[in-house]
Amino acid sequence: MNVLQEAGEALQRLRQKRPLVHHITNVVTINDCANATLAIGASPTMTWAPAEVGELAGAASSLVLNMGTLQPWTIDAMERAGKAAAEKDVPIVLDPVGAGGTTYRTQGALQLAARLPLTVIRGNMSEMMCLAAGRSGINPGVDSHDREVMTIEKVRHLARLLKTTVAITGPVDAVSDGRRSVLLGNGTPLLTYVTGTGCMTTSLIASFAAVSGPFTAAVSGILSMGIAGETAARLSQGPGTFHLHLIDALYQLQTETYLTCGKVLNYDE
Amino acid sequence: MNVLQEAGEALQRLRQKRPLVHHITNVVTINDCANATLAIGASPTMTWAPAEVGELAGAASSLVLNMGTLQPWTIDAMERAGKAAAEKDVPIVLDPVGAGGTTYRTQGALQLAARLPLTVIRGNMSEMMCLAAGRSGINPGVDSHDREVMTIEKVRHLARLLKTTVAITGPVDAVSDGRRSVLLGNGTPLLTYVTGTGCMTTSLIASFAAVSGPFTAAVSGILSMGIAGETAARLSQGPGTFHLHLIDALYQLQTETYLTCGKVLNYDE
Amino acid sequence: MNVLQEAGEALQRLRQKRPLVHHITNVVTINDCANATLAIGASPTMTWAPAEVGELAGAASSLVLNMGTLQPWTIDAMERAGKAAAEKDVPIVLDPVGAGGTTYRTQGALQLAARLPLTVIRGNMSEMMCLAAGRSGINPGVDSHDREVMTIEKVRHLARLLKTTVAITGPVDAVSDGRRSVLLGNGTPLLTYVTGTGCMTTSLIASFAAVSGPFTAAVSGILSMGIAGETAARLSQGPGTFHLHLIDALYQLQTETYLTCGKVLNYDE
Repeated sequence: MNVLQEAGEALQRLRQKRPLVHHITNVVTINDCANATLAIGASPTMTWAPAEVGELAGAASSLVLNMGTLQPWTIDAMERAGKAAAEKDVPIVLDPVGAGGTTYRTQGALQLAARLPLTVIRGNMSEMMCLAAGRSGINPGVDSHDREVMTIEKVRHLARLLKTTVAITGPVDAVSDGRRSVLLGNGTPLLTYVTGTGCMTTSLIASFAAVSGPFTAAVSGILSMGIAGETAARLSQGPGTFHLHLIDALYQLQTETYLTCGKVLNYDE
Repeated sequence: MNVLQEAGEALQRLRQKRPLVHHITNVVTINDCANATLAIGASPTMTWAPAEVGELAGAASSLVLNMGTLQPWTIDAMERAGKAAAEKDVPIVLDPVGAGGTTYRTQGALQLAARLPLTVIRGNMSEMMCLAAGRSGINPGVDSHDREVMTIEKVRHLARLLKTTVAITGPVDAVSDGRRSVLLGNGTPLLTYVTGTGCMTTSLIASFAAVSGPFTAAVSGILSMGIAGETAARLSQGPGTFHLHLIDALYQLQTETYLTCGKVLNYDE
Repeated sequence: MNVLQEAGEALQRLRQKRPLVHHITNVVTINDCANATLAIGASPTMTWAPAEVGELAGAASSLVLNMGTLQPWTIDAMERAGKAAAEKDVPIVLDPVGAGGTTYRTQGALQLAARLPLTVIRGNMSEMMCLAAGRSGINPGVDSHDREVMTIEKVRHLARLLKTTVAITGPVDAVSDGRRSVLLGNGTPLLTYVTGTGCMTTSLIASFAAVSGPFTAAVSGILSMGIAGETAARLSQGPGTFHLHLIDALYQLQTETYLTCGKVLNYDE
């Protein structure tokens, strides 16, 4: 079965199960993350008080840790939630927003990656490079420019260094679990004119992680955002109308849509 | 005068007075709560610093306490604001988001209900059941499934146990002040695909509470959201476009709309 | 060269440079501020952890300090960010939301104005009056009603009292740096039915401040919001659809739009 079929079947399971996805996320895009999670068919909870965050993460079907507006108390909450999730085998998806951008973020991301069993890490190339360099203690040997050509070799190398499934978004998207690797080609430039499309992709990956393995979850989340983006772009006059049509398009995705519209540029296992 | 007429007249007073509605609310849906409040014709303020929250709540025409992203400091701010509001007879509307879902939330909701003179409590059936059990020390004797058939008896019973006006939203909405009770039938399934439609309903009830008694405020707020939802659903292709048309439809509500479109399923006094 | 031409040229530079605009802002409208910044052509960052806020503000091309949901920790972060910005000559734009409304806000705004070299202050008339009275220790001699007729003399007087560039928004908008002054007439009543249009204007001014002097930045930001508001109003049925079309219209602004659509009511230098 190819990755597009796997994505379609994961969507079917997602909409049957309507899994609970707990988020500890940033205050810029928190509303969009909740609405994207609802639109794909899952059910979001999004709070982080120390007294309840472990209870909520342990009872959820997957957990999002998004470092957008990182604060000391959000790092604490993420560790607490991550440990509760790990005890119950709840998949954890990390979005290391801005890792490499400031020392504080780099350290925060490395701390979470060191202490928690992450199921998927979703970020752009420079965030991934920063994590890989910090985790392995060696230069990941990948040019740091986000815009350079993405290859199967690069994404697989990063997955192996990080010892988890990586989902790298950019002009070309890439997913690898160190064994299976894929390059994906859906998307539209309008996705870069709405804040939070990366965060929403992370929430989609977590939604799929509640009903499938890490590789399929990462592929399905990225395909969903890319295909919905293309649909929304056709209906929009700018990033405002695009923003809404994007949510509509996620809601309208169907099992067959991945087979019809998904663009696999390269695949290796 | 029936409840639909009362709602229409309340809307008229609301748009004339443009009352100030102070919110202590969650960070997921805070923007939607502000925009729903503006659309219905009131004026929102939404901040919670200890040094000013009492000043703002005391000067407002009504107060929303929404427990969405509850934190220790928001509970403190809610008590402070609630006490200042109570001193000036400013109506207080509580949205006990997630009460019963975690121990922390149940205790927070019960603490607020015990210490503040709440004008209206707006929640779903399980949140109300949790509050009623905790307040009365006895099992409220209502089956806890949200989806079971709502009746006049159930909502009146909960209002009497909680000694205030209750507004219960679900497949059928219900309001009671322990004497007058009503079941309302407007709405659309799309309301469950946008985060914050419950929170917005609470903000609408608080807006109406600034210009009418608790029962009429609760009925008017629920009718406004249900009718606007139906209008928006007719114009939408999914939850993204629905989200916007919902705000438009609240703005376009008129005195007569309640009489034309409101659905009273049962009424008792 | 007139102010409309200057605005058009500033937009051209803005879209070429795509400057980084760091925000410390409120949680009500933070998503809109990010999306307005992206739509006009700049790149927003929006976080405030003490450990990184100086690093981010010092590396940005301009800094927004928006007092919306003011907290003790946001004031600290604003001072820290402002000092880092000042050391690197990064322009600072203050939005003193609610100054004059509570003692806490008045003191916060005065503290920031006293300690930081503000490039532009953007607010409504009563916020400006409050700041001017507090800064100069004398009554600014301007009637405090927001709705009274705005004049060149009033805005110039306030700019001189505050010793910076002021951007006053209201039924008529006004900008002065104490030497050049202008009254601007674009806009639509729908702008008052969406929360955060003032905040977004501040973010636009900061975006322009990264590529032009304070006076041109303030004029360009206000013109952009007013003209985009007029475009959006023509396409909208209410504040929900208006909200989106507003972002679209900011994205669609072109160099010539200011000359074609900008309304200069009065100008003096």
